[in-house]
Amino acid sequence: MTIQQSPKSSALAASPLELGDLLEPVKIELELVEEFLNSNLVDDSPFIVELLGQVFKAGGKRLRPALALLSGKASATPKGELSRLHIIQAVLTELIHTASLVHDDVIDNASLRRGQETVNRKWSDKLAVLTGDLLFAQASVCLARLMNPPVVGIYGQVLGDLCAGEIRQMRAQFVLSLDWDAYIQKSVWKTASLFAAGTQSAAILNRCNETVVSGMKDYGMNLGICFQIVDDLLDVTGQSLKLGKAAGSDLAQGLITAPAMYILERRDEKSAKLEQLIRTRAVSTNEGTEEALDIIRSGGGIEQTVALAQRYAEQARNALSVIPPSEYRDSLDQIVDWLLTRTN
Amino acid sequence: MTIQQSPKSSALAASPLELGDLLEPVKIELELVEEFLNSNLVDDSPFIVELLGQVFKAGGKRLRPALALLSGKASATPKGELSRLHIIQAVLTELIHTASLVHDDVIDNASLRRGQETVNRKWSDKLAVLTGDLLFAQASVCLARLMNPPVVGIYGQVLGDLCAGEIRQMRAQFVLSLDWDAYIQKSVWKTASLFAAGTQSAAILNRCNETVVSGMKDYGMNLGICFQIVDDLLDVTGQSLKLGKAAGSDLAQGLITAPAMYILERRDEKSAKLEQLIRTRAVSTNEGTEEALDIIRSGGGIEQTVALAQRYAEQARNALSVIPPSEYRDSLDQIVDWLLTRTN
Repeated sequence: MTIQQSPKSSALAASPLELGDLLEPVKIELELVEEFLNSNLVDDSPFIVELLGQVFKAGGKRLRPALALLSGKASATPKGELSRLHIIQAVLTELIHTASLVHDDVIDNASLRRGQETVNRKWSDKLAVLTGDLLFAQASVCLARLMNPPVVGIYGQVLGDLCAGEIRQMRAQFVLSLDWDAYIQKSVWKTASLFAAGTQSAAILNRCNETVVSGMKDYGMNLGICFQIVDDLLDVTGQSLKLGKAAGSDLAQGLITAPAMYILERRDEKSAKLEQLIRTRAVSTNEGTEEALDIIRSGGGIEQTVALAQRYAEQARNALSVIPPSEYRDSLDQIVDWLLTRTN
Repeated sequence: MTIQQSPKSSALAASPLELGDLLEPVKIELELVEEFLNSNLVDDSPFIVELLGQVFKAGGKRLRPALALLSGKASATPKGELSRLHIIQAVLTELIHTASLVHDDVIDNASLRRGQETVNRKWSDKLAVLTGDLLFAQASVCLARLMNPPVVGIYGQVLGDLCAGEIRQMRAQFVLSLDWDAYIQKSVWKTASLFAAGTQSAAILNRCNETVVSGMKDYGMNLGICFQIVDDLLDVTGQSLKLGKAAGSDLAQGLITAPAMYILERRDEKSAKLEQLIRTRAVSTNEGTEEALDIIRSGGGIEQTVALAQRYAEQARNALSVIPPSEYRDSLDQIVDWLLTRTN
């Protein structure tokens, strides 16, 4: 069932959909994933166990492994049958995500993540670098266990995309580019590439045909781009507070995303003002951030960005037509709607 | 040919062996490795190319890929025939080594590496974290291209060992442990694990039998432990200057290695003095470092450490008996001797 939503109600209003309900069909498998994450693969010394406990005890939505598991169940024959390899692949997906968060926290000097102290804050930047490396290493061990060269290739590319995307973003701070292709590409590197690896690889592990594999990749890719656009939106609407981020923190760092780009490309008085706030780096002060957010909010930057997110959401939904109906496909479909209304 | 050396002449005297001569049998392959390192696997934007150029232009001995290539040639049938996979495996080995150096430089706040400015110094810690991640990602892509699950498993474990070893070392600073097993284990994690992965995997790619594979692993493992012990020795003899490190810099950081351990385990007057310098962290001052180095040098810590390194060197040489004589085996054999006399 697809819930049609108007731009007004989506991505801004509180969601009637609870992610927990949508993930019910993979609840047992997600518990196995959790066990796996907390058990140790490459080192079991007490301190390493404590360190990884700190990283994982904060929880997190486990959206990426859930999508991989649902994609696996939806594309399996018979439906709903998963192998142990699918669990490992789901674990791997979360390990890569978590590793990149740990390194991002070092890069952004973050103190809190998912309501818990970050490793860099609790111990040190140095230890956080190594912790991220260790998680990447654990991901490599999982990848090895899959013994599936195409899947190894896909995740290898994801790892590269994550770093290259972050490096490019770092270099693009305060750059007033209106290159939409580059914006979407950055969203692919930062976010969608890992989403797509999860949903596509699950189908590969099921030995699905090329149409299904490619459809599940398209689903993950479009969903991931949509997820990143909504993330950029939450920064402007201030609903990202639940993420532990202040409203406008992307803007304050000089990261120009869709809501600002829509204003900037108009080349009118408001766009000139916004451009000036960014160019002079006034946007990094509290007043400057507020002024920039006001311009974006009052200028319709939010509505246009919602519409953009919905276009990708629609493409994600359409991609699901390659697999037959099932409760798992329904969940994948409804996650698209949940995503458009998420506030964390 | 095995050059027998007395403890006095080895690991202290200038070497009559030039590494370049010993690597002659894999010269062409090492050039391919160099090309591969400088070409780009996951991202070819100008800045990423500049970044990786900075990392690789400083050169380095390329000892790890050379050992993998020599091991491949020595264990191939017919001798000397390598596949493209061996080149990729050699590249992968150097990528992992370089990635861990880039992250080590962040951890140690290092400014120079191989005579070049480090990434953290030239740009920032943040960019260095991402650069290391990118190199690890490139390594993952290489690993995927090998399409060899056992080799993937071996390198996955190496990645974990590298991080876990570094984390344990960080936690063990100023800890006066005399646990020799832990000391050797740390050398395995930090260094020998990657050496062994290179020599063992090259034999696996040649589809050698278990005896040869295991022998080549033993060679790399013992050589790696020996390499790390000599590294620890160079820190005390001061010959590590060529590495861009001041004499005693390990000691100053509270890293207790073999030369100090030999003194500490005697429980005499000198060992009490050394223990006090470490316990009070006086060892971190210039005078304290000098005093500690004097105690170790005059107390025979160097000679005993040379003898320890030679025991592992001997085991590395013995392991080579699993492969038939060839110019490649001769090189592997002579590299053991070079290592005992190396000063950088």
